[in-house]
Amino acid sequence: MPRRTEIFGSVKIHELQRILKLDSGGFENPRAKDVSFEEIKDILRRLAIVIPVKDEKIHLLDGVLRAIPFDCSVIVVSNSERENHDIYKMEQDMITKFHELTQQEILCIHQKDPELGFAFYDTGYDYLLDKDDLVRDGKSEGMIIGMLLAKSLGKDFIGFADADNYIPGSVREYVMDYAAGFCMSESPYSMVRLHWRYKPKVVEDRLYFKKWGRVSETTNKFLNLLLSTSTGFETGVVITGNAGEHAMTIKLADIMSYSTGFSIEPYHFVYLFDEFGLKAEKISYPDAANEGIEIFQIETLNPHLHEEKGEEHIKNMLLGSLCTVYNSKLCNDYVRSKVLEELRDILDMWEKPKANIVMPPIGGIDASRFTKLLESNSETYVWFKQGTGIESELGEEDLKGESIRSV
Amino acid sequence: MPRRTEIFGSVKIHELQRILKLDSGGFENPRAKDVSFEEIKDILRRLAIVIPVKDEKIHLLDGVLRAIPFDCSVIVVSNSERENHDIYKMEQDMITKFHELTQQEILCIHQKDPELGFAFYDTGYDYLLDKDDLVRDGKSEGMIIGMLLAKSLGKDFIGFADADNYIPGSVREYVMDYAAGFCMSESPYSMVRLHWRYKPKVVEDRLYFKKWGRVSETTNKFLNLLLSTSTGFETGVVITGNAGEHAMTIKLADIMSYSTGFSIEPYHFVYLFDEFGLKAEKISYPDAANEGIEIFQIETLNPHLHEEKGEEHIKNMLLGSLCTVYNSKLCNDYVRSKVLEELRDILDMWEKPKANIVMPPIGGIDASRFTKLLESNSETYVWFKQGTGIESELGEEDLKGESIRSV
Repeated sequence: MPRRTEIFGSVKIHELQRILKLDSGGFENPRAKDVSFEEIKDILRRLAIVIPVKDEKIHLLDGVLRAIPFDCSVIVVSNSERENHDIYKMEQDMITKFHELTQQEILCIHQKDPELGFAFYDTGYDYLLDKDDLVRDGKSEGMIIGMLLAKSLGKDFIGFADADNYIPGSVREYVMDYAAGFCMSESPYSMVRLHWRYKPKVVEDRLYFKKWGRVSETTNKFLNLLLSTSTGFETGVVITGNAGEHAMTIKLADIMSYSTGFSIEPYHFVYLFDEFGLKAEKISYPDAANEGIEIFQIETLNPHLHEEKGEEHIKNMLLGSLCTVYNSKLCNDYVRSKVLEELRDILDMWEKPKANIVMPPIGGIDASRFTKLLESNSETYVWFKQGTGIESELGEEDLKGESIRSV
Repeated sequence: MPRRTEIFGSVKIHELQRILKLDSGGFENPRAKDVSFEEIKDILRRLAIVIPVKDEKIHLLDGVLRAIPFDCSVIVVSNSERENHDIYKMEQDMITKFHELTQQEILCIHQKDPELGFAFYDTGYDYLLDKDDLVRDGKSEGMIIGMLLAKSLGKDFIGFADADNYIPGSVREYVMDYAAGFCMSESPYSMVRLHWRYKPKVVEDRLYFKKWGRVSETTNKFLNLLLSTSTGFETGVVITGNAGEHAMTIKLADIMSYSTGFSIEPYHFVYLFDEFGLKAEKISYPDAANEGIEIFQIETLNPHLHEEKGEEHIKNMLLGSLCTVYNSKLCNDYVRSKVLEELRDILDMWEKPKANIVMPPIGGIDASRFTKLLESNSETYVWFKQGTGIESELGEEDLKGESIRSV
């Protein structure tokens, strides 16, 4: 159970919760919440896990797929190379074999597929297209593609997992933690964000189990500062500002705006503060404001071990994250000066943080029309149905749960 | 499914099997075996996991406990320091808190408890006692203590897990893999041995995912050589010679002999080859010989990341492992010369590998008398029952499954 919950307008942020037991026994405990396997399974069936991929090692992706519970659907959105080596083809081959063996429902598509760009154009959402009407590079853009595909599958929940995870068991836990969060939620507008217990780093030829990443610590500090200066009460409730591992109800996903670049995750908070916070000027989504938006922050039992990204990536992440704070409607001169101070080494003198590019809510897009366009025209789109072989050509027929096999 | 099975007398060794999916969907597949959650749960209830502990970091032990499914019972056998710092007390405190929160059944005891030595003495099994009638140091000795406690709980299966594992999700998988193995077994005498998919090492400030440990590779080579020279057909079927992660049916545990030092795991094979192999002279356990002894070797999906042990430990492990081969009844001059060649750098010139100290089967010990002695007299023995507080004093009463809480 969270010890405390901070309420800011319609936004409820629960304090960190910890995983006491991966497979618990159903006993009551005033300090803990037991979530039964049946409840979790019910959520899993309504959950799609989106995996944005970009040239990650294929056996890492394979491990991640094996770890995602069968009841979830998996959506792989790849932006991997297709020119010199067709890495996407290798990914698709691996996924085909994986589906033959496990018969789990999987969708996959390539981000640069021209038909994908066309489907966005056709359904009136061109905010992520470049001048050639292709979808831009970027993880946020891939995530939006995944969300639309999840909607077309009729899912109620959507979660994200990275493809570069060395520990399949962690990925499984992430999915279970998402499901446990949704079991605890009382609002149809809710979000689960994971906090890694440890993030092991190699320090002088041994492993050091770091608790905090550098960027996370700073992002959280500034998100909390934004909240504190707005309410007048200091808080440290936000500890998952950069949580790449997060999940949302589709209802919430439909009304969110999404920042591009490296700031999609911290921008979740800034957007919710701006739109649903104490000082929001107009409420665009009265139903959500009324029901309240719940944010769960869960500390995983497993450590997170992934591919090391370079110094440049860390810099960009920090810059992107703090720009979202800088550009918040709630940001006052004091917070702005603090942001500039923090970014002194990154920004050139006098330069101001750029406005972040924001993609508006996807709730208005006709997801089934979107997917139908892909089904008819796309060459990279494949829909492996549950319990069947490749059935993407069959289109409408719902073979779910039947044990028809293509091999 | 294992692709092949090597049969040697009454011993069936299945080739490596791989985990395709942590949570599968129940579909039939000619190349794979789907094990349902219900079947697994049924095994888990009859399984005790023994964790031998010796001054491992307490938060690692904590993570391991949280990862073991609730339905299993856990037996912690500690040989941690009690003199300068009472580490055993810290362990017990942590376990008490853990039980308060999760209500999982846990037994714990200290290996050097004088009453433990007395209980062995009293039940006529003094093979692991030192001259002061205390249990010797050593992991094998701790494992035997754990097996007896598991027997007194009426369990049918026993599995082992190390306390120094950095990835709780791996430990959970080990337990599930054990259960899956027993679900596949057709003999009441069976063993599941795990093969780590990777064992990450720090190599020049990055992680290198090694497939094989140095000792394992050599041990397996010689166990296979022993088998090959006995049958006349070359084989590479043994790949889990040093599998610290293994589990057995209690029926098999009862008739095994156990080697001390660092060779308990490879000696499993040598003992079974000697006792139940093609050339066994007399069959001491006709029922087991008749039913056959099945060995499953399962490759985990998760990597194994644990505390680094020193060079000395590696040397001792290699020496201990190859001594079991050298002293096998099946070992001929050729294999012996190969062993000596391999150990040239470790053994002094002309020195011969020592006979390994072997502890005879535990099947004859009256486990309930053994445990009753501990319950009456031991100060370090605690039995935390499922769903209750500390109830060790209540002795006989079976409160299992009731939700009585001590806090």
